[in-house]
Amino acid sequence: MVNQRADIGWQSSKSDSSGVSNSGESSKESSRCSTPVLDADRSDRLRDKMKRRIESGDRWFSLEFFPPRTAPGAVNLISRFDRMGSGGPLFIDITWHPAGDPGSDKETSSMMIASTAVNYCGLESVLHLTCCNQTKEKITAHLNKAKHLGLKNIMALRGDPIGEDWVEEDGGFNYATDLVKHIRCEFDDYFDICVAGYPTGHPEAESYETDLRHLKEKVDAGADFIVTQLFFRAETFLKFVKDCRAIGITCPILPGIFPIQGYHSLRQLVKLSKLEVPEEIKQVIEPIKDNDAAIRNYGIQQAVEMCKVLLASGEVPGLHFYTLNREVATIEVLRQLGLWTEDPRRPLPWAVSAHPKRKVEDVRPIFWASRPKSYIYRTQDWDDFPNGRWGNSSSPAFGELTDYYLFYLKSKSPKEALLQMWGEELMNEESVYEVFTNYITGHTNHNGHKVMCLPWNDDPLAPETNLLKDELEKVNRRGILTINSQPNINGKPSSDPIVGWGPAGGYVFQKAYLEFFTSSENVTALLQVLKKYEPRVNYHIVNVQGRNITNAHDMQPNAVTWGIFPGREIIQPTVVDPVSFMYWKDEAFALWIEQWAKLYEEESPSRMIIQYIHDNYFLVNLVDNDFPLDSCLWQVIEDMFTLLDSPQVSQDEGSEL
Amino acid sequence: MVNQRADIGWQSSKSDSSGVSNSGESSKESSRCSTPVLDADRSDRLRDKMKRRIESGDRWFSLEFFPPRTAPGAVNLISRFDRMGSGGPLFIDITWHPAGDPGSDKETSSMMIASTAVNYCGLESVLHLTCCNQTKEKITAHLNKAKHLGLKNIMALRGDPIGEDWVEEDGGFNYATDLVKHIRCEFDDYFDICVAGYPTGHPEAESYETDLRHLKEKVDAGADFIVTQLFFRAETFLKFVKDCRAIGITCPILPGIFPIQGYHSLRQLVKLSKLEVPEEIKQVIEPIKDNDAAIRNYGIQQAVEMCKVLLASGEVPGLHFYTLNREVATIEVLRQLGLWTEDPRRPLPWAVSAHPKRKVEDVRPIFWASRPKSYIYRTQDWDDFPNGRWGNSSSPAFGELTDYYLFYLKSKSPKEALLQMWGEELMNEESVYEVFTNYITGHTNHNGHKVMCLPWNDDPLAPETNLLKDELEKVNRRGILTINSQPNINGKPSSDPIVGWGPAGGYVFQKAYLEFFTSSENVTALLQVLKKYEPRVNYHIVNVQGRNITNAHDMQPNAVTWGIFPGREIIQPTVVDPVSFMYWKDEAFALWIEQWAKLYEEESPSRMIIQYIHDNYFLVNLVDNDFPLDSCLWQVIEDMFTLLDSPQVSQDEGSEL
Repeated sequence: MVNQRADIGWQSSKSDSSGVSNSGESSKESSRCSTPVLDADRSDRLRDKMKRRIESGDRWFSLEFFPPRTAPGAVNLISRFDRMGSGGPLFIDITWHPAGDPGSDKETSSMMIASTAVNYCGLESVLHLTCCNQTKEKITAHLNKAKHLGLKNIMALRGDPIGEDWVEEDGGFNYATDLVKHIRCEFDDYFDICVAGYPTGHPEAESYETDLRHLKEKVDAGADFIVTQLFFRAETFLKFVKDCRAIGITCPILPGIFPIQGYHSLRQLVKLSKLEVPEEIKQVIEPIKDNDAAIRNYGIQQAVEMCKVLLASGEVPGLHFYTLNREVATIEVLRQLGLWTEDPRRPLPWAVSAHPKRKVEDVRPIFWASRPKSYIYRTQDWDDFPNGRWGNSSSPAFGELTDYYLFYLKSKSPKEALLQMWGEELMNEESVYEVFTNYITGHTNHNGHKVMCLPWNDDPLAPETNLLKDELEKVNRRGILTINSQPNINGKPSSDPIVGWGPAGGYVFQKAYLEFFTSSENVTALLQVLKKYEPRVNYHIVNVQGRNITNAHDMQPNAVTWGIFPGREIIQPTVVDPVSFMYWKDEAFALWIEQWAKLYEEESPSRMIIQYIHDNYFLVNLVDNDFPLDSCLWQVIEDMFTLLDSPQVSQDEGSEL
Repeated sequence: MVNQRADIGWQSSKSDSSGVSNSGESSKESSRCSTPVLDADRSDRLRDKMKRRIESGDRWFSLEFFPPRTAPGAVNLISRFDRMGSGGPLFIDITWHPAGDPGSDKETSSMMIASTAVNYCGLESVLHLTCCNQTKEKITAHLNKAKHLGLKNIMALRGDPIGEDWVEEDGGFNYATDLVKHIRCEFDDYFDICVAGYPTGHPEAESYETDLRHLKEKVDAGADFIVTQLFFRAETFLKFVKDCRAIGITCPILPGIFPIQGYHSLRQLVKLSKLEVPEEIKQVIEPIKDNDAAIRNYGIQQAVEMCKVLLASGEVPGLHFYTLNREVATIEVLRQLGLWTEDPRRPLPWAVSAHPKRKVEDVRPIFWASRPKSYIYRTQDWDDFPNGRWGNSSSPAFGELTDYYLFYLKSKSPKEALLQMWGEELMNEESVYEVFTNYITGHTNHNGHKVMCLPWNDDPLAPETNLLKDELEKVNRRGILTINSQPNINGKPSSDPIVGWGPAGGYVFQKAYLEFFTSSENVTALLQVLKKYEPRVNYHIVNVQGRNITNAHDMQPNAVTWGIFPGREIIQPTVVDPVSFMYWKDEAFALWIEQWAKLYEEESPSRMIIQYIHDNYFLVNLVDNDFPLDSCLWQVIEDMFTLLDSPQVSQDEGSEL
C-alpha cells in the first residue's frame, strides 16, 4: 500500500539483486514451507483469524511485497515467499502495479503473483486493487478472476494518479470508498476487504480530520480492517488510532512498519509519499549515508524500538511490514521482537495450499514431496480433494505437465549454475552417479561446485532425509539414483523438530520409503531379492514405456505417513498410490530430458548419456510396511548387489527383463 | 435343502432344547463374532468367493439351518449364528418353511431369520425359496423383499408337495428350472442362485439319468452352484459329480453332509426323504439305538471319515452341513477335519454386517460395542455408511429405539434368570454397585448366581476387557458403574489373539476408554480433577435430560481404535463421536428402565432405586489420548475419590452441578 510509483523505483533499483544466493539465509526444502496454522486457521477467513488472535492476545505480523519486473524476478520472489512464509505471517499482500498489466496472466502480474502465493505457497494473501485508470467493468472482471483463482482478500485503494493530479475516470471510481461499496455490492460478503489509513493524513486530503472521516466512510462501506501508511514515530500511530476510535472506527488497525534499509531508498520514498523524516532520524543517518550496513543496522534498531512501543501500548494486534521485497531487515526486526516463529510444527507434512477449494485436502501421494507446486498445478482442476482417505477420491485425473518452464516450477538456478553442478560434460553413467552422490553428501564436485539441486529436488536435502545420508550416499555411488525417501518413524511426538507435524500432544508415524532410478540389470536382481521380502515390502517398478511391475494388493494405496492426535480422527497425509505413480512416472522421466539432457547440445555425448538413462532405467519405489522395526530397505539393496556380484546368478537372471 | 416336512419334525423335537446354556460351549462376546473374511471376501459376491477359494485350494464349509417355531427359539438361533459364525462358514442357508409364513415379517419367518443372519450377524446367507403353493407374483414379491433386505443369494427349489403328490399351482411354477429362469428374467444377475442335486436321483424322477438332465437344465437356466441332498457313502457323491461333469455341468457341486445325531431323527429323515441307509451303518447303530451319546459319537466318526475321502478326492471344494439347528456334532466334525477355524483375526474389531449397502462401512462409534445389533438396527436406513473417516458422514440420523424387545435385541436370558442375577429385591444404590461388581469379577452373588449379563452387555466380559478386571472391580465397588471400556494398545500385531483384527502383518492401536454411570456428586469432583488432565483426557458427561459437559474440540470425533497394515490406508474402526453419544445416551439411560426397572412392580422400592439412578446419575466417557503411556484413567478416578474424601473440598464444590 506504499505509494505505487515508489514501488517501481524500488523494484528497478533493488528487487532483482536480492535473490536466494545473496540473502545469506539457509534455504529450506520447499515442501516444508507453509504458514504454520491451527486447524481453525486453515478454514477460517482472514477477518476471523484476526478476531481469534485478538481475543487470545496472540500478536501477528504481515508482509507486503510488490510484483517483480522480470520472470527470473518472479521465480526469486516465489522462493522468498516460501522462506518468509516459514516465519509465520498471518498474511502477505501484493501491491497493484498499474504499469505492469496487473490483472493479466503474465507471470509478473499482481494477479498471478498473488495467486501463486495462495495456491502454491499456501499463504493467506491480500491482493491490492486500485480505481486508477480502470472502468467499473474492468474492476469487476479483475475481482471475478481473483475469486476464480482462490483469492479471498482485497486491499481496496484509490491508487496514485498517473500524472501530477488525479483525473476522473469515465465509468470508474474516484474514491476507495466507491471501490469498497462496489465489491460489497457485486460480491456480497465473499471478500475480506482492507483499506488504507494515513496516520498523518493523506497528502491530498484537505485536512487530517477530513481524511479520518473518509476512512470512517470506507469502513462503514464494508472494510474489515485497516493497514496504515508508514510513519516514523510510534506516537503518530497511537494518536491516529485514538482519533479513529473516537469517531467510531472499531475494526483492527495495523501499523505499517518500514525498516529503513538505505539512504537513497529512504529519500526516494519520502519524496514520493510526501512524508517528512523526523529530525532525530535525519541527524543519525546523514553522517553515515555512505555506509549501507550502518544505515541498515540503524533502521533495524529504530524499527524494533518503535514496534516495542506499539506492542506495549495494547492498541496493536499485529504489525504490517513494507518489505520492499527484501528479507534481511524485516526478518531481523521480527526476530528481535520475538514474532518470527519458525514453528517446527507444520499442520501437515506438506505445504497446505490456501485455495478455499483445497481447504479439506489432507492426503497426497508421496511422489510429489519435493515438487509440491507441480502437484498443485496438475490437480488444480479437481472438484474435490481427498480428505481422510485417498481411496475416496474417484479416479483422479492429473493435468498434463508439458510446460516444465511454468514460472512457479522453474528452477531457481540459471543454466550456467546447473551445468556447473551437474557437469559441463558427462563421460558415462558413472558421471551421473557422482552428481547424485555429491548432492547427497554436500561435497564439491571436481570443478569445486556443490550440487545444490537435482531435476527432482530444487532444494538441498531436507533435514529428515539427512537422517539417511550415509546409506543414501552408499547406494547412489553404485547407481541407485535416489530422488525421494523417508525414514520409518514409530510414534515420535508431533512436536519433533525434524519429523513432527500437526497439533500438539500427538504422535507421528512413517513407513520407510525409497524411490530411485536404476538400470534394468539392477532391477532384474532386485526382483529376485524382493521375493524374500514378501509381504513386508511393497514395490512399484516402471520404465518410461510404462511397463509396470508391482505387488500392490488390488492397486490399493499404502499410507506411509500418519498421525494420531488428542480428540481427533487419524490423519494420513501421504500415501503411495499405484494409480498416481503412473502420472508421476511420466513427470519423473521427463525431468531427465527437460531439465538435464537439454542443457547439452543435441547429439552430444553428454546428452546421449542422459537420454540412455531416460530410455533404459527403471523408476522404483519401495515401502517397508514393518514400521516398528529398523528399515529393511537398505538390506534389500545390499542383497541385490550381493546377488549381482555372484556372476552365475546374475547370468541366469539376465534375460528376465 | 433337506426335505421340508422333515425340518418341521426336527424342529419340534429338538431345536428349542439346544439353547446357549445347553451347548456346553463358552460364549463369545457378540461384538466379536463375524465371519473372518479377507477384504476381497467382504465385497465379492458368493460365487466369486467360491471361485477364489477354488483357485487358491482353500476348502470351505457351509451350514444349513431351518427357521425356529417360537420367538425364544429365534433368539436362541441368532446366538447360535453368532457362535457358529465364529468358526468361519463361507455361508449359511435358511430353509423355506411353507407352513411358517416364510416371507412374512414374523420374527420366526425364513425371510426374517435370513435377513437377521445377513444384517445383524454379518453372515453370507442363502435364502431357500420353493415354487410350492405360490403364484409367480408372490414369488416376485418375495424376491423383491429379499433384495430390499440385503439378501443376495437364493436356493431355488421346487419344494415338496403339500400332500402325497405334486399339485400344479395356477400361475405358479412346477419345476425349480422355471424358478431359476424367473429369477434371472426378473432380477437379471442380482442374485447368486443355488440349486439342489440328488446323488441318488430325486425320489420322484423317472430315472437317475433323467434327474441329471433336469439338473443340467437348472444350471443352464442360470444356477451358480449345486448343493446335494445328503448321502451316506463318499462314492455315491463322487460318482454323481463324475456323471454331472460328463454331461457338461461345470459349476461347483457341494456335498450335503449329515452327521447322524440320533436313532429316531435318522429314521424319520430317511423315511421322509426316501433315502436308504446302507447296511454297514444300520449294523452299527441298531445295537446302540438307545444310547444317544454312542450314536452321536458314531455319527461324528462316520461323517469325518466320509468327508476325508471326499476332500482327498480333489473333487470337493467345500462341505455343506445339515446342522438340524444343532451345534455340537457339526462343530466336532469340522474340528476334526481342521476346517473349524476360530480365527482370532477379525476383519474389524466389530462384526461387519453382510448387507451390500454396508460393504464399505469401516467406522462406528464405540458406544454400541456391546450392542452392535442395536447399532445396525438404528442405522439401517442410512444411505451411506462412514468409510475411512467418521467425520465424512453427514449429520447421522439415528433411528429411534423404542422397542427394546425386537427379537434380535432381546436378552438371551428370561425374566427369572435376570432377577436371579440382578436381585429379586434391591435395598439401595449399593445393591446395584454389587451387581456391576459381580458381573466384572464373575463371582456368585449372595443367592449363588453369577451375573452373566447386564442391560448394556448381553454377554460375559470380553477377553480384552478382562485385561482391566482388577481396576474395573475396584471402581465399580465404589459406584463407578462401568458399561464399556478398552485398554490402551500401542502397536500390537494384528494377529494378537485378544486385541488383534484386520489382515496379517499389521499393527493395532487403541486409546484407553472408560464409560460409566455415576452419581452427580462424583461428577462434580470428577470435573474438578479433570482440569489437571487437560488436554490429555477427553470427556463427555451427560445426564438423562441431556445436559452435556465436554472438552471435545469443535465436537470432532476422536479415533480410539486404529490399525496399520501392509499396503493399505489407515483403518480407524471406532471413534468417540460427540454427536452420536447423545443418541447413545438415550438408549443407555432407557436400558435402566426397560431392561431392569421393569422387572419389578411399579412403586416397589427396587424399581424406585433404579428409577432414581436413571433420573440422577450421569453417563460419563473418558478417553486417554496418550496411548503410548500407561492409561491415566484409573488415576483420574482415584484422584476423584481422594478429592471426595477430603471433606472441605467436596463441600466447596458440592453446588457445582
